[in-house]
Amino acid sequence: MSYPSTNFSPNETLRIVVLGGGFGGVYSAMYLEKKFKRYKNVEIILVNKENYFVYQPMLAEVVGGGVGLIDTVSSIRKLLPRTRLYVRDIESVDVEKQTVTLMPKYSHTPKVIEYDHLVVALGNVTDFRGISGLQEHALPFKNLADSIVIRNRVIDMIECAASESDVELKKSLLTFCIGGGGFSGTEVAAEVNDFAKKLAKNYPEIDPKLIRVILVHSKERLMDRELPESLSNYAGELLKKRGLELRFGQRLTTATPYEAIINEKERISCRTVISTVPSSPNPIVESLPLDKEKSKLVTDYYMQVQGRENIWSLGDCASIPTPDGKGRCPPTAQFAIREAKVLAHNLAAKVLGGSKKKFEFKALGMLGALGHKSAVAEFFGKIRISGFFAWLCWRGIYWMKLPGIDRKIKVAMSWLLDMVIPIEAVQLKMSPTQGIAKLHFEKDEIIFHEGDIGDFLYIIVSGRVSVQTTKDGHTEEIATLGSGEYFGEMALLNKNTRSATIVCLEPVDVLALKKSDFGELMANLGDLRESFEKTDKQRKEGLKKAS
Amino acid sequence: MSYPSTNFSPNETLRIVVLGGGFGGVYSAMYLEKKFKRYKNVEIILVNKENYFVYQPMLAEVVGGGVGLIDTVSSIRKLLPRTRLYVRDIESVDVEKQTVTLMPKYSHTPKVIEYDHLVVALGNVTDFRGISGLQEHALPFKNLADSIVIRNRVIDMIECAASESDVELKKSLLTFCIGGGGFSGTEVAAEVNDFAKKLAKNYPEIDPKLIRVILVHSKERLMDRELPESLSNYAGELLKKRGLELRFGQRLTTATPYEAIINEKERISCRTVISTVPSSPNPIVESLPLDKEKSKLVTDYYMQVQGRENIWSLGDCASIPTPDGKGRCPPTAQFAIREAKVLAHNLAAKVLGGSKKKFEFKALGMLGALGHKSAVAEFFGKIRISGFFAWLCWRGIYWMKLPGIDRKIKVAMSWLLDMVIPIEAVQLKMSPTQGIAKLHFEKDEIIFHEGDIGDFLYIIVSGRVSVQTTKDGHTEEIATLGSGEYFGEMALLNKNTRSATIVCLEPVDVLALKKSDFGELMANLGDLRESFEKTDKQRKEGLKKAS
Repeated sequence: MSYPSTNFSPNETLRIVVLGGGFGGVYSAMYLEKKFKRYKNVEIILVNKENYFVYQPMLAEVVGGGVGLIDTVSSIRKLLPRTRLYVRDIESVDVEKQTVTLMPKYSHTPKVIEYDHLVVALGNVTDFRGISGLQEHALPFKNLADSIVIRNRVIDMIECAASESDVELKKSLLTFCIGGGGFSGTEVAAEVNDFAKKLAKNYPEIDPKLIRVILVHSKERLMDRELPESLSNYAGELLKKRGLELRFGQRLTTATPYEAIINEKERISCRTVISTVPSSPNPIVESLPLDKEKSKLVTDYYMQVQGRENIWSLGDCASIPTPDGKGRCPPTAQFAIREAKVLAHNLAAKVLGGSKKKFEFKALGMLGALGHKSAVAEFFGKIRISGFFAWLCWRGIYWMKLPGIDRKIKVAMSWLLDMVIPIEAVQLKMSPTQGIAKLHFEKDEIIFHEGDIGDFLYIIVSGRVSVQTTKDGHTEEIATLGSGEYFGEMALLNKNTRSATIVCLEPVDVLALKKSDFGELMANLGDLRESFEKTDKQRKEGLKKAS
Repeated sequence: MSYPSTNFSPNETLRIVVLGGGFGGVYSAMYLEKKFKRYKNVEIILVNKENYFVYQPMLAEVVGGGVGLIDTVSSIRKLLPRTRLYVRDIESVDVEKQTVTLMPKYSHTPKVIEYDHLVVALGNVTDFRGISGLQEHALPFKNLADSIVIRNRVIDMIECAASESDVELKKSLLTFCIGGGGFSGTEVAAEVNDFAKKLAKNYPEIDPKLIRVILVHSKERLMDRELPESLSNYAGELLKKRGLELRFGQRLTTATPYEAIINEKERISCRTVISTVPSSPNPIVESLPLDKEKSKLVTDYYMQVQGRENIWSLGDCASIPTPDGKGRCPPTAQFAIREAKVLAHNLAAKVLGGSKKKFEFKALGMLGALGHKSAVAEFFGKIRISGFFAWLCWRGIYWMKLPGIDRKIKVAMSWLLDMVIPIEAVQLKMSPTQGIAKLHFEKDEIIFHEGDIGDFLYIIVSGRVSVQTTKDGHTEEIATLGSGEYFGEMALLNKNTRSATIVCLEPVDVLALKKSDFGELMANLGDLRESFEKTDKQRKEGLKKAS
């Protein structure tokens, strides 16, 4: 099939705007640069939050330190010398006016870009809403910052456990719970397990047997969507041997600061919950007035968005039919790269005239790293390998696919050094300013104890708590508090320790305001100060009566 | 001189607690490990905020990317295999009870450590209080996180300037102002200048001539305390040739989000202010009931704190007399390392009996890197060199002094790669959650314009602002607001753009609350919501009347 021939002249200007800097967006721009090489009048713009492209398949290795912190990222400008890059958030897209509005940065005026063709490659985002406590307490695993945060968390827990004498607290610090046993969940669980155990060897205060890594997966085998049963089982056996605890047919249903809750019943005492489960559509894609299927933009065989001559889409945010029309292309990097090539061809054909191509591609194979120099792989739907040789394949293939020779050298160096130099547990702490944090607690959990050092004010969003004091060994409830009420301000206002224990009577959501932020607000908002002081007075009287 | 002989028996237990993990603390523990090698009953504890030791002299290179992000840090546990490390903040020290209390972490119970001997090596901290706007808007340059933040800021400014068409804003984004021309100020200014200009070459949208790096120094020459005049002058000439703007005899007096103010008069439009000037004593040192001189602990020739048999101090937080008794030892890494050796000797002599040593040391030389493969150096107070050869010396000497062979290999690799592989401008963004920010503005500055997108609520801490609207080309003041009042809530409550312009009538300090945080507080604090809604209603009526 062909697009009608056009009279696109070398003097005409044309602007193609690509949204998103993942595999789909970057490779689209790369192929578009090639297609329009001789047309200097065609402008290609790419909009992305960061100025780098993240090589997702290697992120899990960052957790274990197998590759350096930023060895998995490449500068987009280097990859795309002819493309104009805007490092901005997207405010909105107007498909009628054919404009993209970018959020202001270091000014308050938004930037509006007009387009002739739009390529939407915004992927999806992590969204924990709807699963209680996950938003507040689970660590996501999607981008580079997530990997670094997880790495630092593991180091922090080991450090902290080393200086802790309370055995129960120590165990809780050394327990890591991961939700979701797909590719990324399995890889990150394997890396956390290896890294924590290797690291602990340097701490005489820690018995490595206390380290527990639990992988919770709702299906009956690991990577069930990605791998055939035999490889799945091999991976499961291997990880079990290395001490990973696998929970099949179970779900991570809640997280609190102190617990992971499985199947709404089993409460596991731990401080680290990682979730790879829910991926939501990008809010910008959701907002587009275009045909969608399961929140993905519906395209035809040529990746044109239904009913729009100048909007294209690919990658994880697009629903692209398979050539037989029976299914939809899977959301993987392999597919996104091939889609990009065909999309660029079709877009060029549309502009310059010429035949268009259907997207046709069969996955070459699947690879999953399992840490500790092992992996599982399947090629061409037939050849299945596992263990060290699969791991070598994994490294080799991904290394070859790394964009840019600089990146290849750096990653090779990292891998080399990693073999020679023993593990380093240096934390890269960035300023831990947190502002107003949201916390979720479950029934019977204690938010703080009488006598603790007071560092936060809590405002109840939902649920009820019991305020209790102990006198002569007797525990007495002096009040219950609910939604909209606050507690913890006494220790902050009067600068001493907590005067009561707070026990949750049901699942509770609170906002926690840091002592210093609380002080700032109090000092400067008269109404708020008055309101707090009134409550403080009443509560002091209440405490006096109670004692 | 000797300490009296003791009967310290191999069965007796003794605990030495070292506070601080900089050069003074880490090297003290290192020498103490050697001195007490045969005494397994002597416990050495080190308390530090991080689990790594930062090699300060190389931090400036992190800014320019000459060494990798974490190549300048070493794991303390590896450096000190026999020392027990606590990675905690210090809550307090009780010199009467001989205890150190550590802040709780992942629990609410503080940890108390008893000591027999205490070594205080807490250095100093960055403290911008007292210089208006610095606390709020200047970037410090003291630790690893600071270097990374500065590096990211430079990248961010170049990125942002590239997509900006307003020439004035572009210039402002490309101006960097550094306060303080000592060693670290000069090094960081040189690195920022080199890095920004090299980087800009990859951005066709940026004319490198627009990049301005200004170094403001209160004295008449660079590094006046550290280097002789001839070398100082050489360094100054060299940096001038590379386009650095040197301002001698001037002071950075104020910073705002949009300006650096010099000598209280000259206003330079810029978005990046770096200050290396004020270093304050560590608050824990300040709190100790011991003799101090300029906030430093006064010790004798043997580094024992005056009047205390079991408290020792060294490094930047100690005031140690020079052997002639006329001066005080300078606060440099060179001295701290030598002090550590003598301190360990004396502490061992005190415990085991034996002769004690006076601290005597003459600096071998001084080295200062100037970026771009150049440096200045002075050895033995006589030999002075500069340029490329001095830079080779600088690299060679610091490389030799890097602790640990692993670190040496990694840094050598980084340097090697840096020569082969062109500069990379990949930002390592961590989650930019900010909570409640403090901002400082000067007279006539505009906090926001009518029609801007509303993203913050502002609470006035001090100063007065004018609220202005424009109608038919006429600007009208509809109100003035002062301390304790707030503005900006209308755009947040009513979800549209700013309905007025806010101009500062005098220097103004405000708290800025992010839209999302504001929403959370509003939704959950009834009193606050009522107060805001009342004000909102009044203001809407006011606006109606004005129009």
